[in-house]
Amino acid sequence: MDDLRQDRPGRETGDAIQDEREAADPQAERLRHIRDLLEEDRAAEVHALLEDLHPSDISNILESVDAEQRAALVELLRPGFDAEVLAYLPVDLREDVVDLLEPKEIAAAVAELDTDDAVDVIQDLDEDAQRAILENLPPETRALVEQGLTFPEYSAGRLMSREFVSVPEFWTVGRLLDYLRAAASADESDLPEQFYDVFIVDPMLKVRGAVPLSRVMRARRSVKLNEILTEDIRVIPATMDQEEVARMFRKYGLVSAPVVDGTNRLLGVITVDDVVDVIAEEAAEDLLALGGVGEGDLYRAVLDTTKSRFSWLAVNLVTAIIASVVIGFFEATIEQVVALAVLMPIVASMGGNAGTQTLTVAVRALATRELNEANAMRVIGKEVLVGTVNGLLFAVIAGGVAIAWFRDPLIGMVIAAAMIVNLICAGLFGAVIPLALSRLKIDPAVASSVFLTTVTDVVGFLAFLGLASVVLL
Amino acid sequence: MDDLRQDRPGRETGDAIQDEREAADPQAERLRHIRDLLEEDRAAEVHALLEDLHPSDISNILESVDAEQRAALVELLRPGFDAEVLAYLPVDLREDVVDLLEPKEIAAAVAELDTDDAVDVIQDLDEDAQRAILENLPPETRALVEQGLTFPEYSAGRLMSREFVSVPEFWTVGRLLDYLRAAASADESDLPEQFYDVFIVDPMLKVRGAVPLSRVMRARRSVKLNEILTEDIRVIPATMDQEEVARMFRKYGLVSAPVVDGTNRLLGVITVDDVVDVIAEEAAEDLLALGGVGEGDLYRAVLDTTKSRFSWLAVNLVTAIIASVVIGFFEATIEQVVALAVLMPIVASMGGNAGTQTLTVAVRALATRELNEANAMRVIGKEVLVGTVNGLLFAVIAGGVAIAWFRDPLIGMVIAAAMIVNLICAGLFGAVIPLALSRLKIDPAVASSVFLTTVTDVVGFLAFLGLASVVLL
Repeated sequence: MDDLRQDRPGRETGDAIQDEREAADPQAERLRHIRDLLEEDRAAEVHALLEDLHPSDISNILESVDAEQRAALVELLRPGFDAEVLAYLPVDLREDVVDLLEPKEIAAAVAELDTDDAVDVIQDLDEDAQRAILENLPPETRALVEQGLTFPEYSAGRLMSREFVSVPEFWTVGRLLDYLRAAASADESDLPEQFYDVFIVDPMLKVRGAVPLSRVMRARRSVKLNEILTEDIRVIPATMDQEEVARMFRKYGLVSAPVVDGTNRLLGVITVDDVVDVIAEEAAEDLLALGGVGEGDLYRAVLDTTKSRFSWLAVNLVTAIIASVVIGFFEATIEQVVALAVLMPIVASMGGNAGTQTLTVAVRALATRELNEANAMRVIGKEVLVGTVNGLLFAVIAGGVAIAWFRDPLIGMVIAAAMIVNLICAGLFGAVIPLALSRLKIDPAVASSVFLTTVTDVVGFLAFLGLASVVLL
Repeated sequence: MDDLRQDRPGRETGDAIQDEREAADPQAERLRHIRDLLEEDRAAEVHALLEDLHPSDISNILESVDAEQRAALVELLRPGFDAEVLAYLPVDLREDVVDLLEPKEIAAAVAELDTDDAVDVIQDLDEDAQRAILENLPPETRALVEQGLTFPEYSAGRLMSREFVSVPEFWTVGRLLDYLRAAASADESDLPEQFYDVFIVDPMLKVRGAVPLSRVMRARRSVKLNEILTEDIRVIPATMDQEEVARMFRKYGLVSAPVVDGTNRLLGVITVDDVVDVIAEEAAEDLLALGGVGEGDLYRAVLDTTKSRFSWLAVNLVTAIIASVVIGFFEATIEQVVALAVLMPIVASMGGNAGTQTLTVAVRALATRELNEANAMRVIGKEVLVGTVNGLLFAVIAGGVAIAWFRDPLIGMVIAAAMIVNLICAGLFGAVIPLALSRLKIDPAVASSVFLTTVTDVVGFLAFLGLASVVLL
């Protein structure tokens, strides 16, 4: 394990720091306190505590309590409910909380949000709930939200906010400042709560460039915006997939980016806070998919969880039965040399583990585009080589163990040969399977490991028992 | 598989969009073009192409070519080398590129970076390279970078930039604007290239609050900063672990945050673009660790990769041998009923897969803090229940298959009972092992699966063969 640890020396440091933090974790403290107060029916005190909290903290508390306490908390939060709390909740819990409130109350709360958050809160609710809330929104907000919902799920159009600052390029810095000050005092402005760039547009609303606020603030009033604008900015088509948006933000270190329609007209803006969740979810999705589970699993009820996991296990049962059929071919051999039954899982298991290593690297690198058509052959070649070298090493070790255990050099030779064959196959198929699935537009994170396990089990048992039946009988 | 697909309906949409994109992927196009030019020794043309590219794109190209072409490209980039290219490269490749350049050249390039990027580039190099570059930096930059390096690895102090805007609270908006304009035209300013908040400090440099730029721009010149500052901001201790910083940025949707020392004095600022990488790496680290590989695996040479994976496989070999020893106890039983050898991998494999499902959910939820002491017992209870229900279902299926295959109801009963026992254990230990490791401050992503596989293999073989030896003989 030493080498593995060297790969991430930060862990120790991280955990030490985390340790200090946990010793006096104010959030766990607070949660315990609120739970105690709820149990003693001291609602007024809970209410006072909640009032000072960030919506994200309130959503955390709603996540951590049971359904009864959650209902009690929502009751307390009801007057002037802050819809941002909904935006921070996991989807499953969001539905539960929405069910506890009246559509009118939710609509009033949602109307206060920027359009991107409003769309985010509404899009995952079921259709009836969506309609009920939309009907209660002010007409203008409703139109913007409904437009947002016309974009495909997981597209840039769903992520963008419709509130942004766009001005013509002939404006000066002074005129921009005057405009923003006037809009702010008019109070009925549709200025975003927070923004980071001013977008420069032509009369047709086509994006010409952007000026970051920090650059505006450094420029004198007389400076024209077209003198300080950046023309070479990343513009996002509204139909772009959100993972691609996230990759772009990460790649270019963006904080906000304009979203445009097919004719390059400015539709909205995506800010990094919306993208951060997508970035975090991207890798998490692959992790869960490789483990054979779906998202939101933690919050599902027992029967829902059982159902969603059942299908994955059923697929694996088929794989296991195929492996058993292979073993079945060699019943006569095993009957004569029972030691084979004892040793055979070793070959299959080592193949499975070696293959999973390759598979994990390949799935991750495909997701980040580090692995692509351009270097696919090189990666496959490398994996086969790694499999060969490790195959040789473990052939010696496993062969030695088998000889020491069963006092039979032939059994040692058989397990050694099978180990080499299976570890080479593991490297080859661990790389080829995800690449092939990705080419076929099937998510490699979801489907790769079933195919891989089938290969390493079948090859493992076939090589070991097949060789044994030739050499030993 | 249907249920799994329902869990992430976005995949299809995403892949369809990706498909369009790939059809005319300008980056793959460009890469191919550059490779062709390199092979034909048309350096001038390559140079012209590279000149217009973002540093992130150049780093991508360096990643995708082989070592020889990389050296040729670095030679072209040499005059006025942009150190941001280094910041975007994966650590292993960064060292290769650094080796191709003179310390003086790198120092000149690094001096142009903000301190956070300078520290980022230098920190992962080996000590000799670090010293050589530091010695060639201008004294002031060198002092800031060396200070940055005194903070623990993976801490906020390493992530922060020392360039920020901080002003006293009695200033007005007008004075702030005049100050920024004057600093900008003095040109020798240490203003950051980009900033999003102005920090308000007292005479002791203690942080009193922050004003987002978009709020400054909406306020008239006469407005005092202390009238518009936000006092309740998230302040980051320099020693905070970077994963905790990332969690905070994500949780509160931050774009920048002040970093302070133990006495709350302002030291620097962390911006979201630095955090985005940490967020993305956090989940990726767990994914790779669960798969038994380290980071940067894709770029390692064959022998390094082999070595780093060997240790994980060696641990798994021990696990596999333990399982074999268990099988060895029942050699006599298997000799009499060979069908047992055929069927036994099914029970172990189903236990392993079911346990991995639970394990994946638990490891992920521990990383996001969704799973913690407060709900640990509830999650364990749920997993045992899910294991029981799926155990019952697969007992019926596997029992049926065994009876149909070997025409022996007793074998069917034995596999059914063993399946129930193993799937309950899988759920129990799939949740308990990562929780226990996390309590012991051992990274659950790295170590959980070895322990789990040992449990599900041993319990699987023991339950199946043990029951068989009682019932069948």
